[in-house]
Amino acid sequence: MTLQACAIFSAKDLRMIDIDETAALAPDQVRVTYGTGGICGSDIHYYHEGRVGAFEVKEPLILGHEIAGTVREVGSAVDDLTPGQPVAINPNLPCLACENCLAGRTNLCKDMVFFGSAAVTPHIQGGFREELVVPRRQCVGLPDGFDLSIAAFAEPLAVCLHAVNRAGPLTHRSVLVTGCGPIGCLTIQALRLAGVRHITATDVAAGVLATASALGADETIDISHDSRILDAYEAGRGHFDASFECSGNALALHSCLNATKPRGTVVQVGMMPPGNTGLPLGKIVSKELHLAGTFRFHEEFDIAVDTLVSGRLDVSSLLSGVFSFDEADAAFAAAVDRQQHMKIQLRFT
Amino acid sequence: MTLQACAIFSAKDLRMIDIDETAALAPDQVRVTYGTGGICGSDIHYYHEGRVGAFEVKEPLILGHEIAGTVREVGSAVDDLTPGQPVAINPNLPCLACENCLAGRTNLCKDMVFFGSAAVTPHIQGGFREELVVPRRQCVGLPDGFDLSIAAFAEPLAVCLHAVNRAGPLTHRSVLVTGCGPIGCLTIQALRLAGVRHITATDVAAGVLATASALGADETIDISHDSRILDAYEAGRGHFDASFECSGNALALHSCLNATKPRGTVVQVGMMPPGNTGLPLGKIVSKELHLAGTFRFHEEFDIAVDTLVSGRLDVSSLLSGVFSFDEADAAFAAAVDRQQHMKIQLRFT
Amino acid sequence: MTLQACAIFSAKDLRMIDIDETAALAPDQVRVTYGTGGICGSDIHYYHEGRVGAFEVKEPLILGHEIAGTVREVGSAVDDLTPGQPVAINPNLPCLACENCLAGRTNLCKDMVFFGSAAVTPHIQGGFREELVVPRRQCVGLPDGFDLSIAAFAEPLAVCLHAVNRAGPLTHRSVLVTGCGPIGCLTIQALRLAGVRHITATDVAAGVLATASALGADETIDISHDSRILDAYEAGRGHFDASFECSGNALALHSCLNATKPRGTVVQVGMMPPGNTGLPLGKIVSKELHLAGTFRFHEEFDIAVDTLVSGRLDVSSLLSGVFSFDEADAAFAAAVDRQQHMKIQLRFT
Amino acid sequence: MTLQACAIFSAKDLRMIDIDETAALAPDQVRVTYGTGGICGSDIHYYHEGRVGAFEVKEPLILGHEIAGTVREVGSAVDDLTPGQPVAINPNLPCLACENCLAGRTNLCKDMVFFGSAAVTPHIQGGFREELVVPRRQCVGLPDGFDLSIAAFAEPLAVCLHAVNRAGPLTHRSVLVTGCGPIGCLTIQALRLAGVRHITATDVAAGVLATASALGADETIDISHDSRILDAYEAGRGHFDASFECSGNALALHSCLNATKPRGTVVQVGMMPPGNTGLPLGKIVSKELHLAGTFRFHEEFDIAVDTLVSGRLDVSSLLSGVFSFDEADAAFAAAVDRQQHMKIQLRFT
Repeated sequence: MTLQACAIFSAKDLRMIDIDETAALAPDQVRVTYGTGGICGSDIHYYHEGRVGAFEVKEPLILGHEIAGTVREVGSAVDDLTPGQPVAINPNLPCLACENCLAGRTNLCKDMVFFGSAAVTPHIQGGFREELVVPRRQCVGLPDGFDLSIAAFAEPLAVCLHAVNRAGPLTHRSVLVTGCGPIGCLTIQALRLAGVRHITATDVAAGVLATASALGADETIDISHDSRILDAYEAGRGHFDASFECSGNALALHSCLNATKPRGTVVQVGMMPPGNTGLPLGKIVSKELHLAGTFRFHEEFDIAVDTLVSGRLDVSSLLSGVFSFDEADAAFAAAVDRQQHMKIQLRFT
Repeated sequence: MTLQACAIFSAKDLRMIDIDETAALAPDQVRVTYGTGGICGSDIHYYHEGRVGAFEVKEPLILGHEIAGTVREVGSAVDDLTPGQPVAINPNLPCLACENCLAGRTNLCKDMVFFGSAAVTPHIQGGFREELVVPRRQCVGLPDGFDLSIAAFAEPLAVCLHAVNRAGPLTHRSVLVTGCGPIGCLTIQALRLAGVRHITATDVAAGVLATASALGADETIDISHDSRILDAYEAGRGHFDASFECSGNALALHSCLNATKPRGTVVQVGMMPPGNTGLPLGKIVSKELHLAGTFRFHEEFDIAVDTLVSGRLDVSSLLSGVFSFDEADAAFAAAVDRQQHMKIQLRFT
Repeated sequence: MTLQACAIFSAKDLRMIDIDETAALAPDQVRVTYGTGGICGSDIHYYHEGRVGAFEVKEPLILGHEIAGTVREVGSAVDDLTPGQPVAINPNLPCLACENCLAGRTNLCKDMVFFGSAAVTPHIQGGFREELVVPRRQCVGLPDGFDLSIAAFAEPLAVCLHAVNRAGPLTHRSVLVTGCGPIGCLTIQALRLAGVRHITATDVAAGVLATASALGADETIDISHDSRILDAYEAGRGHFDASFECSGNALALHSCLNATKPRGTVVQVGMMPPGNTGLPLGKIVSKELHLAGTFRFHEEFDIAVDTLVSGRLDVSSLLSGVFSFDEADAAFAAAVDRQQHMKIQLRFT
Repeated sequence: MTLQACAIFSAKDLRMIDIDETAALAPDQVRVTYGTGGICGSDIHYYHEGRVGAFEVKEPLILGHEIAGTVREVGSAVDDLTPGQPVAINPNLPCLACENCLAGRTNLCKDMVFFGSAAVTPHIQGGFREELVVPRRQCVGLPDGFDLSIAAFAEPLAVCLHAVNRAGPLTHRSVLVTGCGPIGCLTIQALRLAGVRHITATDVAAGVLATASALGADETIDISHDSRILDAYEAGRGHFDASFECSGNALALHSCLNATKPRGTVVQVGMMPPGNTGLPLGKIVSKELHLAGTFRFHEEFDIAVDTLVSGRLDVSSLLSGVFSFDEADAAFAAAVDRQQHMKIQLRFT
């Protein structure tokens, strides 16, 4: 049987292709019928530029790694999932054997297999396909009837839960979030769960600031009109205990470094353009700041699913559009329209 | 009575000036006769450029903050120092009342008084003077007859002990040190005390690499001839558990970021040129590195004195020249001659 | 002018005494008119036993350290409080100069002055008095009209916020709380603020378990009837990421050690009887548990006031009785009636 | 072919038995010819009492887990060990799949297979046998000709390196070690590597104190004659930054709790008698101490081998006797004679 998948061939050249998923399941595998999948920032880069940073599309690459679906068939050794059950798909498949995995840092696995990535050639194919065959450990079972469009937020939420963990305990602290796209907004929600006292969020688009406010930012600041608008927070060597840079903009990172208190932490969450970014190292030195990277997630995928299933977080307002794969070009256009859209999902029907 | 001091008026305009130190001691003060004092990197910047980064010399500034001397007189409330006793002078006088002091971070005190600094105007005068009057808590008593030229290393050693602490526990770990001037070499010694397994040190000057090797570097690499010489350490996402950038050179910092393992820490110890430094943020993000600043020291001054007095560290090989203040210009010239000199000290006689 | 205070002379011998508070204020002092004050566990021990552990009442001791009142007069240097303004009183007055204070651990100050304590002789008098004169830094200003009966919870809440901090980050974790008196219930609330995923609370009194449930415990277990009731949580080397022992009962501490996962933390919050408590050290060793003490609070007093003023926490349901000092014996009787009462406060009118 | 092994049948009933090791090697296995093996505290308990705590010998149990030997044969997939090469055997075989393994805590593996243990039935057989067949990952290759009697110290040294890690960074700190048997002495050596400033060691046997002193204790105290001898260290709420209890004696643990500073850590390394130990919980609470367990080791086995091979540690003075298995009863008698002996090893020839 041939099935369809949505692959990028080069910048803006997105096509539906036929794939073959007819091999019998291995004992520990699960066959999942695609339900819905979110378009992520890296998908957008592949679509618009044919690359993400140094990773260039060299052969057709099936995109997609924010996927939820329904179990269609389980391998002989899988006894805790049943056909018909909804599942969220964890796009990470770490080796569990390398130095980083054994140190409890599977997100930094030296032999990670990650959906939809041109980091290696042949590329690792992603999840925008009618059916996915994955090892049992990439599936997190959901309650019967659970809304797949919510479940597909588990992946980006896991990214943000991990980013928040990178800053150490933040309960009762004041935090700056720069950039209020899906990642910024989910970071705000993750910070709320972590018990922060006060969140200031900045962006240049009024629409996303309104969403940020609705999701838990105590204060939102439109920085598009006044370059001095954060001066009060930068006075006296800074105001915030920690900052999360979610925009991928160098100026925003400067704001974070300026407005964070001595010994505070700045976590770079958003993807910066490739190459070097000019940073005021003297600030980092004289304030003893920590600038920390964050990369994907570890145990946070399971936690993300739990927060969604338990209802502790409601991410539904972040879903601003659902398109069929027939309309994929329109979907990718919508995904970069920050005034109109937040998270876009793609479905087969 | 008038006494002499060595002040910078503007770039390369260094003069001996007369100062007045005749006021009676307050109960908690100590009058110290100058013994010897080291020339530090910031003194060098003031001398050669008339500024350190954003701090410009706007009035005559007495330099010097690596000072050891002999107690001449003690205030009425000082009962644990005696005239004639050698002392090391801690150039930090934190307020002990601000938020940072009370959180155990006196080095980040909001109202720090630090010797020899143009950070505020009027400038805070430094220690190159025949006599110093300081609060008791800036003196650390030394055993009778202790070599003042060794004691004057307490301050830069404290800087390096603090820098090492900023990276967390390093026992049994492998570490890179870029830059082997006095700060690099003292960092190597501080790392040895912290039980690191292996130190790789780099520089462009063969002389300082030899000193680094003698002081504890397991491997020294002259990076002046071959830009690919660290490639093997940068392969596979990096080799070192932590790196200490002690040269103030952006390329060295790039080497640190490239050659440090995922989740490792890079501590910027050396002073970078003012303004922005281009950094590969993608490396920091995808390897989840920590880039940490380090600024002066806290309890490490007392620890530095203890390591010197106990003989746990022998820094004597770092003292490469002693000049009288009459020869101060020659001393400042020597201090930047990295092929010939390491630490230069200045004395009145 | 003479004023009244409530002092303990020996076990169950509580009397109103006359005190003199007529001295002029020092510049940094504040005179506060008593509003209301909670009866704490140590007050109860002083009342019923004439001692708290090793601290024996040797002279009349004014009790009380959970106090809120109204500013009556301010010293000449106090410019940020005004007469008539409500304040919460921090009963801690650390020296800010000892090794522990300077390391950011003022709660462990070597020269702490703490309200209402027989730890030293002469005893340090407490806050159950018509007027209190305290340094400015012991007052936290409240908004006009703020309910003093809520403000008087700042002290016990600060104890619990500090206890929670002692366990490190707990966001998304599962926690056991043994003992649901005021300290247990406030710990539950502090844990909720810290973002824990699930709280299991145990006690032997149905009434306090109902309060615990209302305040945020996800599951409450009455352990009075069945000694095996926690077996499921103790299986497989334990279930909880951390436990907080708030009952002062050795068996409850055993439950904590048994039911906490390997590498988890058990914080002893409640006061154990003096002398030795038998503990299964083998459990601590083979599971690599951390057993941590917690003692009063540091910056958490200000945070506690903030959580109450901002409304992030609602502690009003914990106030189960208000007595006048004329009825103090009845108040102390009520304070130990765990079936009927939670927190009791005392007022002059 | 039948081979010999040394098994305990019940208390003091130790016998040589015949075992069968003729199965062909799996691809990832290694066959090792026994060289030498140390007698550990748990071996001693099995020998003298027929049990270790709750673990009772229910069937013949081959003892031994401090083993070094020589590769005799390698499986088809093993390409980095060669016949004739000396190896140290890591007695831990964690599952690498459970929650604890994946969190970087393999020593707490839920399905650990550990040499020579009656923790489960059938018992896990140990290493006192002519040949051992183990997975590749349990072997650490040694340089040609490396002294196996030194290599057999890797296991107890790893235990002590891990115990030291449990206390967090200790560079420049003062530490108490109670009990100077092999574990106490190796802890002292591990502390020296970690850069501690000063070690005070206590014991009741003059001989072991002399060894402790030779291996790096700065001060040794014979506590057998004067119960007040540590009073000076217990004054003012304690002197040491951390303590390591290596004797398994409750009074020594009390000394640790008394003599450790507020916020210090006490690590219980030695094995306490089964059941409850009376502890002064009030001390733990009011000083905010951390009492931490430590259990075996994780990455520290490789580090231990490295410290021995590199010569950073010289443990040779701890080997006080070598016996053949024919003299095993005499060896076990010697192993408990603390005045005469430290570590005893057993060999076949």
